[in-house]
Amino acid sequence: MDQLQLLGICGSLRRGSYNRMLLRTVIEMLPSEIAVETAEIGDIPLYNADLDTVDPPAPVRRLRAQIASADGLLIASPEYNYSVPGGLKNAIDWASRPANNSVLNRKPIAIMGTAGGRFGSVRAQLTWRQVFLFTESYVMLKPELIVPNAAQVFDDNGILENKSLREFIQTYVDAVDDWMTRHKNSRTSK
Amino acid sequence: MDQLQLLGICGSLRRGSYNRMLLRTVIEMLPSEIAVETAEIGDIPLYNADLDTVDPPAPVRRLRAQIASADGLLIASPEYNYSVPGGLKNAIDWASRPANNSVLNRKPIAIMGTAGGRFGSVRAQLTWRQVFLFTESYVMLKPELIVPNAAQVFDDNGILENKSLREFIQTYVDAVDDWMTRHKNSRTSK
Amino acid sequence: MDQLQLLGICGSLRRGSYNRMLLRTVIEMLPSEIAVETAEIGDIPLYNADLDTVDPPAPVRRLRAQIASADGLLIASPEYNYSVPGGLKNAIDWASRPANNSVLNRKPIAIMGTAGGRFGSVRAQLTWRQVFLFTESYVMLKPELIVPNAAQVFDDNGILENKSLREFIQTYVDAVDDWMTRHKNSRTSK
Amino acid sequence: MDQLQLLGICGSLRRGSYNRMLLRTVIEMLPSEIAVETAEIGDIPLYNADLDTVDPPAPVRRLRAQIASADGLLIASPEYNYSVPGGLKNAIDWASRPANNSVLNRKPIAIMGTAGGRFGSVRAQLTWRQVFLFTESYVMLKPELIVPNAAQVFDDNGILENKSLREFIQTYVDAVDDWMTRHKNSRTSK
Repeated sequence: MDQLQLLGICGSLRRGSYNRMLLRTVIEMLPSEIAVETAEIGDIPLYNADLDTVDPPAPVRRLRAQIASADGLLIASPEYNYSVPGGLKNAIDWASRPANNSVLNRKPIAIMGTAGGRFGSVRAQLTWRQVFLFTESYVMLKPELIVPNAAQVFDDNGILENKSLREFIQTYVDAVDDWMTRHKNSRTSK
Repeated sequence: MDQLQLLGICGSLRRGSYNRMLLRTVIEMLPSEIAVETAEIGDIPLYNADLDTVDPPAPVRRLRAQIASADGLLIASPEYNYSVPGGLKNAIDWASRPANNSVLNRKPIAIMGTAGGRFGSVRAQLTWRQVFLFTESYVMLKPELIVPNAAQVFDDNGILENKSLREFIQTYVDAVDDWMTRHKNSRTSK
Repeated sequence: MDQLQLLGICGSLRRGSYNRMLLRTVIEMLPSEIAVETAEIGDIPLYNADLDTVDPPAPVRRLRAQIASADGLLIASPEYNYSVPGGLKNAIDWASRPANNSVLNRKPIAIMGTAGGRFGSVRAQLTWRQVFLFTESYVMLKPELIVPNAAQVFDDNGILENKSLREFIQTYVDAVDDWMTRHKNSRTSK
Repeated sequence: MDQLQLLGICGSLRRGSYNRMLLRTVIEMLPSEIAVETAEIGDIPLYNADLDTVDPPAPVRRLRAQIASADGLLIASPEYNYSVPGGLKNAIDWASRPANNSVLNRKPIAIMGTAGGRFGSVRAQLTWRQVFLFTESYVMLKPELIVPNAAQVFDDNGILENKSLREFIQTYVDAVDDWMTRHKNSRTSK
């Protein structure tokens, strides 16, 4: 009835994405009564203000509708060049319009990320928080889910086996549940 | 003979882009012996590591070749959501590969930007500097060209008339000339 | 009875500080039933972990007690070198200890700032948000109070007369009231 | 004759500072013909513009003189609250004055840092780069010396024994030598 509906977005487009594995791991550990859909960003065209009309491209309409109907977002982001990946940023640029009244406004968001190196997307995640300040989204503060050395963390089937890391992710998942529940009606109660 | 060859890249795709007007203004004020080409980023697909092979998509090959043959880059960037625009970040993500040995390595770069609001891209420019730290590019420090209130700055023909702003841009242009000349062979002399 | 108790902190130590004028302006515009105290940071020693014992220096004990008993913080910060001022950062470094269980944990905070230049502390404010992510403080998102050209904004008596700016500050003040009320018990309800 | 003269600054004040150990390690590995002095920041008062006159406090005069006479700076910085430590930022705030003509202007700088956690000061180092953009200092780009898990890296005598880490630091030291030599006269040649 008032179960949470979340939307998962993965910022990496490659087939064997570690971030998609991480997102899937989080989703599987969420309480079963939370419904989760995922959004695809690979067919969204590059943002062009000339196309940002009342009738934007279909993949943009789809993404905006998915965000609008979700109680909160789960965003799994790789880090490219010490910052946010261009493709996912492009999707968020589209979703962020019209400014100050977008579907991202007061939307609860939980960020996560993994990377091959030892810093695991820490810089990208900080940049995302700056992005979602503009959109006035409610990004969960703690815990932060930053997973270094992705290649050692997931097995060939994309399963994360490490026990202590799973325990940490359980803490994260519990916080997500709490955060999303607490903030899901923030916009309408504005 | 050893005249500078620069490459201009505009991060906005819309037809009437103020950043393209700013880039054009800078290019026109450069000494006439400096050759400037421009790169288009609108047809570059979203970055996908599965496509980042020895034979990447044609628009990516074109961009990388243009950057490789330029002595330095002039990048005009709008600010989207307090950060870099996704489309331009996507182009740079492609150009940045392979990591540590990309065409951006030790490439001199001058950043500029304008925006409709009162902060004129200051946040996006800081994020770009973080991006180009990863690529080990030589980004000019000062002066910073940050132009607020774009709609008041350019006339209907895209001409920037304001005298004191033109004088400031002249200072910027002189510094660009000096910076690019000083750093253009940084990579080969590694 | 359950009236809000706020603590104002000014990050500039000079006598004629514009940030202190801005903080005073905000405080005067708050509803009269909100009680506001101010904290002094000028006598706080430089942070040294060897002094960060169960019995820290007296000015540190005072600051921590003031923060602990406040429902929320109003922080007025200048920008030094595109970032947070060292003196105020030093005070916050002391307040942030012990990590994960400090008086800043889940404390609601509203940031504001002014500066002589045209960017009015925008960069410092972004850095503060990163700082308060570590402490898991609830920093108000919007509106952001960023006041450029401080010397033109305040008259010789430190009064801010500009009507439209006062109206904007009223919006900010209303949002502060709402934010502090909404989040003031976040820690105990953890 | 034209041997390099460097100034080392440690941003942590505690006696057993890991950052001081890291700074010492780097200094010991520098070529013996490079002279290195160190600066103390613990007695520098909090920045106050009212004291920033032609006759500033003695510890400030000392720091500015040390920076002025050095060919370059080695800065070892801990990370406090995901950002620069207030005490060291305070020292740099003093050194950065007068704006646009300070002793930091066009001064070559190499940053390093270590921390107890797994991210080893990566966020603080990014903030320092933003700070030194304002001062127009030439901060070395690569390699970045970021040392996580400090407690495991240094033995009881403060010695860093790990062989592969020492090899990496040798690469860093070679790059410092090259960078400082290349940029040491940047200001006078302005």
